[in-house]
Amino acid sequence: MITLDTITDAHERIRPYIHRTAVLTNQTINQRVGAKLYFKCENFQKIGAFKARGGLNAVLQVAANGEGKAITTHSSGNHAQAVAFAARQVGLPAYIVMPRTAPQVKKDAVRGYGAEIIECEPTLEAREQGVREMIERTGAVLVHPFDDDRVIAGQATAAKELIEDYGQETPFDVILTPVGGGGLLSGTSLITHYLSPTTRVIAGEPEGAADAVLSIKSGKVEKAPYINTIADGLMTGLSERTLAIIRQHVADVLTVSDEEIVAAMRLVWERMKIVIEPSCAVPLAAVLKHKNQFAGQKVGIVLTGGNVDLGKLPF
Amino acid sequence: MITLDTITDAHERIRPYIHRTAVLTNQTINQRVGAKLYFKCENFQKIGAFKARGGLNAVLQVAANGEGKAITTHSSGNHAQAVAFAARQVGLPAYIVMPRTAPQVKKDAVRGYGAEIIECEPTLEAREQGVREMIERTGAVLVHPFDDDRVIAGQATAAKELIEDYGQETPFDVILTPVGGGGLLSGTSLITHYLSPTTRVIAGEPEGAADAVLSIKSGKVEKAPYINTIADGLMTGLSERTLAIIRQHVADVLTVSDEEIVAAMRLVWERMKIVIEPSCAVPLAAVLKHKNQFAGQKVGIVLTGGNVDLGKLPF
Repeated sequence: MITLDTITDAHERIRPYIHRTAVLTNQTINQRVGAKLYFKCENFQKIGAFKARGGLNAVLQVAANGEGKAITTHSSGNHAQAVAFAARQVGLPAYIVMPRTAPQVKKDAVRGYGAEIIECEPTLEAREQGVREMIERTGAVLVHPFDDDRVIAGQATAAKELIEDYGQETPFDVILTPVGGGGLLSGTSLITHYLSPTTRVIAGEPEGAADAVLSIKSGKVEKAPYINTIADGLMTGLSERTLAIIRQHVADVLTVSDEEIVAAMRLVWERMKIVIEPSCAVPLAAVLKHKNQFAGQKVGIVLTGGNVDLGKLPF
Repeated sequence: MITLDTITDAHERIRPYIHRTAVLTNQTINQRVGAKLYFKCENFQKIGAFKARGGLNAVLQVAANGEGKAITTHSSGNHAQAVAFAARQVGLPAYIVMPRTAPQVKKDAVRGYGAEIIECEPTLEAREQGVREMIERTGAVLVHPFDDDRVIAGQATAAKELIEDYGQETPFDVILTPVGGGGLLSGTSLITHYLSPTTRVIAGEPEGAADAVLSIKSGKVEKAPYINTIADGLMTGLSERTLAIIRQHVADVLTVSDEEIVAAMRLVWERMKIVIEPSCAVPLAAVLKHKNQFAGQKVGIVLTGGNVDLGKLPF
């Protein structure tokens, strides 16, 4: 059970290691949507993504409790960096199982934090097999990218800061995040429920990895009909744990096409002059697609990360 | 004579129309240089560049004094947007003479502010001819991109904010800007002389438009040996006016190659997650090239703008 105290404790624990990231607004984008958008810039976070929060909250506890001699995980990107970064802070070795198709810039960053990369085929089976081998060989503890209460509580702290800094006098009507495995979405929906109960939480999901809409409808963890999206951070499906929280606290999931994702990403680059990755543009794409639904509202959006391979841009 | 009062007045005049832009720091870049760098983010400024400051300071005075029925200028890019934006604020028509080779994104933005574009050949002669025609035909007043005390005083306000916000307790050792026509550099060197006299002001200049180094040496306005650089905002030469100020108050001009400019630009995009244009990366490129000269120092850098054509990136 992730209570308000769990999240507050997580925030205290990770605070010395993270940035309290800026919240930006943009007049042009507000005019285009007809709403007031507040962008929580986790692309400015340590390791370039919100994942630093969850990774740190888990790894700091593993280290403090002496739960293992090393950390391992599997990740296509930002969580890999987060765990590598967090492990370095506490002086534990990190073994990161990454699909060989992961962007080079993310592999370089993981190595830059001193972690060892174990490359595998880009399937869930291969990734989980790689992690099992690491646990056996090194006595490492798994920090799962999202199916972990500590990770979820850490991710919740991004929306906590957003609400504390900009949602006190006038609460947000909506807060949006993308949904992949559901760690950020779960955490965001919980902390919003605790701190700003009138605020709806909505997720943006790529059409090419649309498992969350299905899972919420059926009530059990479903697979996406097909996986093919530029939003490489959102290809994962939910877990029982994240689905349960999401069904309870998330108002809606809006799906968007890759074309809509790239258009939203380009708008942010051109108008806000900040670098965001495709996965990060999904909630804004959803807001642009469903303008009427957000007209006149106060909308918070967690910009999740900015780790793109500049050699492979979709423009 | 541009006094401290001139610049303070300019700041008061333009304050309602501009952002007091953020100052960012980055641990990775600091480590790479071995110095403490403070980036004044004028890429977040209105119109995406510091030029909004000088354009506004001139246009607001033209309007307040009833000096003309319209505004005209010639510019390859950001000054065009600045004048178009400023003219719209005061309700005057703007006629902008732009070389037909200017980036499409900048032309679109100028039109977006309601100004009329007059395209010309990409030579100084054609640009000046275009402006003369506009003055005759429309009774417009020229707001020159840099050879204008009002424009220089406006540009000075970026460094003024940087010094006020981050250079009070411990003064900067150095403040750097790029140099093209010298408006920003002149203004920066003046306000630094007034507010932080122990701080050296240094310019970065592309090797492929290296007129400022020559002009400072000879004491008269020289042409660059050749013009060929990715830094499209810095191809212009100095004027008598800017050269005089620069000779008096600027400590040094450091030249960098296009390769060094692109590497610095990429470093900022990847590590700071912000969009800057090639011209904007020139001072950081100079700092990276001459690390020893800046070791252990407190360094301010004006990031001048973020208006890039995402379809034509040098990565």
